[in-house]
Amino acid sequence: MARYDFASDNTAPATPEAMDALIAANNSGFTSGYGTDTVSARAADLVRGLLDADAEVRFVTSGTAANAICLATLCRPFEAVLAHEHAHVATDETGAPGFFGHGLRIAGLPGASGRIDPASLRAPLAAPDQPHWQPPAALSVTNATEYGTVYAAPALKALIDPVKTKGYGVHFDGARLANAAAAGFDLKAIKNLGVDLLVIGGTKAGMTPTEAIVLFDRSLARRFDARLKQGGQLPSKGRFYAAPFIGMLETGAFVRHAAHANAMARRLADAMPFRISHPVEANAVFVEMDEARLAALQAAGWFVYRFLDGSVRFMCSWATTEAAVDELAEALRQVA
Amino acid sequence: MARYDFASDNTAPATPEAMDALIAANNSGFTSGYGTDTVSARAADLVRGLLDADAEVRFVTSGTAANAICLATLCRPFEAVLAHEHAHVATDETGAPGFFGHGLRIAGLPGASGRIDPASLRAPLAAPDQPHWQPPAALSVTNATEYGTVYAAPALKALIDPVKTKGYGVHFDGARLANAAAAGFDLKAIKNLGVDLLVIGGTKAGMTPTEAIVLFDRSLARRFDARLKQGGQLPSKGRFYAAPFIGMLETGAFVRHAAHANAMARRLADAMPFRISHPVEANAVFVEMDEARLAALQAAGWFVYRFLDGSVRFMCSWATTEAAVDELAEALRQVA
Amino acid sequence: MARYDFASDNTAPATPEAMDALIAANNSGFTSGYGTDTVSARAADLVRGLLDADAEVRFVTSGTAANAICLATLCRPFEAVLAHEHAHVATDETGAPGFFGHGLRIAGLPGASGRIDPASLRAPLAAPDQPHWQPPAALSVTNATEYGTVYAAPALKALIDPVKTKGYGVHFDGARLANAAAAGFDLKAIKNLGVDLLVIGGTKAGMTPTEAIVLFDRSLARRFDARLKQGGQLPSKGRFYAAPFIGMLETGAFVRHAAHANAMARRLADAMPFRISHPVEANAVFVEMDEARLAALQAAGWFVYRFLDGSVRFMCSWATTEAAVDELAEALRQVA
Amino acid sequence: MARYDFASDNTAPATPEAMDALIAANNSGFTSGYGTDTVSARAADLVRGLLDADAEVRFVTSGTAANAICLATLCRPFEAVLAHEHAHVATDETGAPGFFGHGLRIAGLPGASGRIDPASLRAPLAAPDQPHWQPPAALSVTNATEYGTVYAAPALKALIDPVKTKGYGVHFDGARLANAAAAGFDLKAIKNLGVDLLVIGGTKAGMTPTEAIVLFDRSLARRFDARLKQGGQLPSKGRFYAAPFIGMLETGAFVRHAAHANAMARRLADAMPFRISHPVEANAVFVEMDEARLAALQAAGWFVYRFLDGSVRFMCSWATTEAAVDELAEALRQVA
Repeated sequence: MARYDFASDNTAPATPEAMDALIAANNSGFTSGYGTDTVSARAADLVRGLLDADAEVRFVTSGTAANAICLATLCRPFEAVLAHEHAHVATDETGAPGFFGHGLRIAGLPGASGRIDPASLRAPLAAPDQPHWQPPAALSVTNATEYGTVYAAPALKALIDPVKTKGYGVHFDGARLANAAAAGFDLKAIKNLGVDLLVIGGTKAGMTPTEAIVLFDRSLARRFDARLKQGGQLPSKGRFYAAPFIGMLETGAFVRHAAHANAMARRLADAMPFRISHPVEANAVFVEMDEARLAALQAAGWFVYRFLDGSVRFMCSWATTEAAVDELAEALRQVA
Repeated sequence: MARYDFASDNTAPATPEAMDALIAANNSGFTSGYGTDTVSARAADLVRGLLDADAEVRFVTSGTAANAICLATLCRPFEAVLAHEHAHVATDETGAPGFFGHGLRIAGLPGASGRIDPASLRAPLAAPDQPHWQPPAALSVTNATEYGTVYAAPALKALIDPVKTKGYGVHFDGARLANAAAAGFDLKAIKNLGVDLLVIGGTKAGMTPTEAIVLFDRSLARRFDARLKQGGQLPSKGRFYAAPFIGMLETGAFVRHAAHANAMARRLADAMPFRISHPVEANAVFVEMDEARLAALQAAGWFVYRFLDGSVRFMCSWATTEAAVDELAEALRQVA
Repeated sequence: MARYDFASDNTAPATPEAMDALIAANNSGFTSGYGTDTVSARAADLVRGLLDADAEVRFVTSGTAANAICLATLCRPFEAVLAHEHAHVATDETGAPGFFGHGLRIAGLPGASGRIDPASLRAPLAAPDQPHWQPPAALSVTNATEYGTVYAAPALKALIDPVKTKGYGVHFDGARLANAAAAGFDLKAIKNLGVDLLVIGGTKAGMTPTEAIVLFDRSLARRFDARLKQGGQLPSKGRFYAAPFIGMLETGAFVRHAAHANAMARRLADAMPFRISHPVEANAVFVEMDEARLAALQAAGWFVYRFLDGSVRFMCSWATTEAAVDELAEALRQVA
Repeated sequence: MARYDFASDNTAPATPEAMDALIAANNSGFTSGYGTDTVSARAADLVRGLLDADAEVRFVTSGTAANAICLATLCRPFEAVLAHEHAHVATDETGAPGFFGHGLRIAGLPGASGRIDPASLRAPLAAPDQPHWQPPAALSVTNATEYGTVYAAPALKALIDPVKTKGYGVHFDGARLANAAAAGFDLKAIKNLGVDLLVIGGTKAGMTPTEAIVLFDRSLARRFDARLKQGGQLPSKGRFYAAPFIGMLETGAFVRHAAHANAMARRLADAMPFRISHPVEANAVFVEMDEARLAALQAAGWFVYRFLDGSVRFMCSWATTEAAVDELAEALRQVA
């Protein structure tokens, strides 16, 4: 039987902390619906505490939808979002931003190892508006990036400042924000970066499915619930999307589990017989591997796959064990 | 503190059967993602068994999105869906069908107590196509209806037959399919009715949030997962949306709990001091109540509200107790 | 052969003034494209003069698209536009507002003879926002109305004021603005009414196909050309859409021809053997006529049809002759 | 004053043949609307004759909208259209395909001088469907291409055949079909190529604004007028969009004027002091020119601009004179 340990960070089960909170929330009897319940209120408080920010918080079911709804909030159909050319919103969401955003364009920017090259922003920000193409209206950044690298806050600020100077919006895809935090990224710094909308990944952090949308710009919250409802992202039983955040944030498990995932990636990198493609700063290891060796590894039962840049990705999660890493490392040595 | 027992059937917690299955699924280690896991496969088998139908099954997060995606599958933007004028898709989903369907129209049909008047179908089905309005391309039916009434299979067939004769599609909103089944509606008859797409409500049936989309017309399944992904409805951790169905279907709890909810509505109806507006056939009781009495009831802590037709709705669920019904009945007598 | 004189005001040819201006514009050699040419600039000046307003002006190809683009500018997909229930945007544009507006809803309001009942605005404007339905974000008014009646400026102001108080937008469908002007509506008063976006009908006023969008709120003009281009409404050869306005406005023909159309409707009304359904204030006559008589009239070669309210519509245009009116009146007497 | 002779083929006035037909159509009295008139019928016959094909024909106002509507007809929102990476639909329509197609993706393919490299089709056509990206559903080809090159029919067939084998649709952007025909492309061959939807450019061919949509697959015509109406592309006064085609096709002017435009490009190429970037096969000349020289040319009054590939484009039209070409050539020599 195939092993999915390293296929993605969403192949793992939910953490005990998330499950315990879910069970506790279920035991709280009847509640009001659509995110107006006390469980949702408590979870929102905890998210505000995590970020040290007085922001609006919503809990939704899908990171893809959360990102797309944020981009549609910041960008009109005849405008574009600047994002890394390999960002999840650009490559792995089946065009959801264009669907939720009615044709809005993702304008891909280059940059090593998933981090946007600041110089690449200059041309699109300087280009005069003209009616034949979709001018930029927003920037989307991702931390940790798709390639397991981590922006420090000043690096993000350097990307965001010229964008805000133009009056454009900023979306932050934090599907792996926990991993970034565990790698040293200061979560309390986000509020000063100029981010309008942040999506905090619960799912990849080890929760049952849930994502938090944080609206730093509270004016964007007007009728946002109607937007969510229309987009299928206002859960009637909101407590089940809020509770896992309670379990993970009250206990510090959110960052602690991510630190473990990052450490497992480090351990794998240290034992890696293949050339590593990108700096290992969070919970992913990317390596150069030819087709034959990849096939051999897959034949040995390890489900991993080739990523956008041609390298092969190994993803660690809260549930990755040292034993599994060592087992995989041995398998890699066998095929190397 | 307000009591939400009768506000909706989504104010209740999840059933023990759903929670146990969720916990069991979580204990199954690493799995593949996006609905390709063995938990999802098992749940799909159980849904097929429930319906005695060889259909495709997907598990998604939102009934609103599930309905909207089904309608967008059957109807193009310049076409319309025929539905009861008070159907959930027409009145309670913030225009999600038009959003997911890029402007498709819901054409409201009349009919007593939530059931479409068959005669009302004649004019729209007979009208010649002309380019200035959106001609019908599909029918949407709901069972149990928004008013707690239940179609028998022949009544649905009478609605669907002329629609299929025109070559149009049929969507079945089964948000309260369990309650309909508990009221005698034959689930195994659906496959012969001409339904293309069915949404089975898990959430209102007492599960953690989940809905099943059943594709009786398997040709519609081509690229359906891409459609779901783009719409934010292809959960990466699919097992958490499939598992509750396992718990509820393996044990018969799906219909059994709904039968309890229906019985509680019956009990409430029998004790009701206000005039009942619609036949009590499933888990809802609608009554005529003036503003002052409604305000008094709410002031007494019972969160209920006025529905589209002006009556006040009391909704029972798997978790409604006889004691709560009796307590509510007493409160109603106080304000009557 | 069928006679289309009274079928609509778009069955007529273009006026000599419009054609002459078109020919003159064509004789002006090479020009820049996409509305940046001198013909477009001159026409925009004339529109500003007509309205005595310092507004942005664009010339587009379709009234349906112009209306829909305006509504999409004022209203997000999860919001609604308040409009008369029989307004063109609500009933005769195949759902274009929902298509261009990605699901935005038209909320129909009642009112005699096409004029919105001011009292009908109260409930939607007072209703608190809640996420399950699409709250209003804009009002759409039409003058002359679909039923050939005309609002005076104060009547429009009474509708618009409470809408602006809420901070909502206002769209003015002026497909038959010329007829309203000819009936006494003060075009120079529009700028003080709180209208954000006005569509001035060229087509129904006797031009070759063209419509002018007037942006009283100039902040809405930012990237509006990109919006038009994406929506297929930024003509590369802009002069052909601007020129007819030059011909019609320079000469006063815009209102003069409309006055003739209105007079022809008056003449028809005076000779009408059937009961007239709506006040004849512009260029339309609506009458009560049973099926048999309508069929007889159509059999006699007169192409006219039953309208939304069940009455039969006779539409006059700049090209309607007294002789044709008299001929029609005779035919009506024959079938009466 | 700037000279726009070579800026685009839409800076020219309309041809005498087009204008004469427009005037004649205007003189035909009252007609029925929305393309049901006899002028439209006659023009459709002529288009069918031009192509020797029994196809449905519609006349619309915008090439951008025509293309976008065709792509939305062939491709669902979660699918993609394969097109040259510099095709007009990909680069110059402000994302109209994604807007009309609700998020559909244009997947850019490489190829020298605007012609798709047939080898580039292999990977996207062979890739297995998976739900995380938008799989191809259609091919879009352009002839003459954006770079003024011309496909012969067999070259198009080589592109289309593997696409049809997969069951996908084919859109043909014929904005400059007249120029392709004048360069030897056999218009009567199109019907055998597997094209589903063709847009014939009237505007760039020297007409007043108009485009013809040809539906070779007549099953696509079902409710197509409703689609056009909703998209703002069903002109009420259809004769004004049909008439120019009558004038141009009855007289042979359609291809004859294009031959002149092509000859002017040839003349310019022969006198060109700059290096020519692409084969001159139709009515465009592209050259390598540095910034200083381009600025000098523009300062001399010639409005031309840098194209997507970095070369500078000179576009000829039916109205380009030998004298203008010689004048431009002299100006080019001055700055060279």
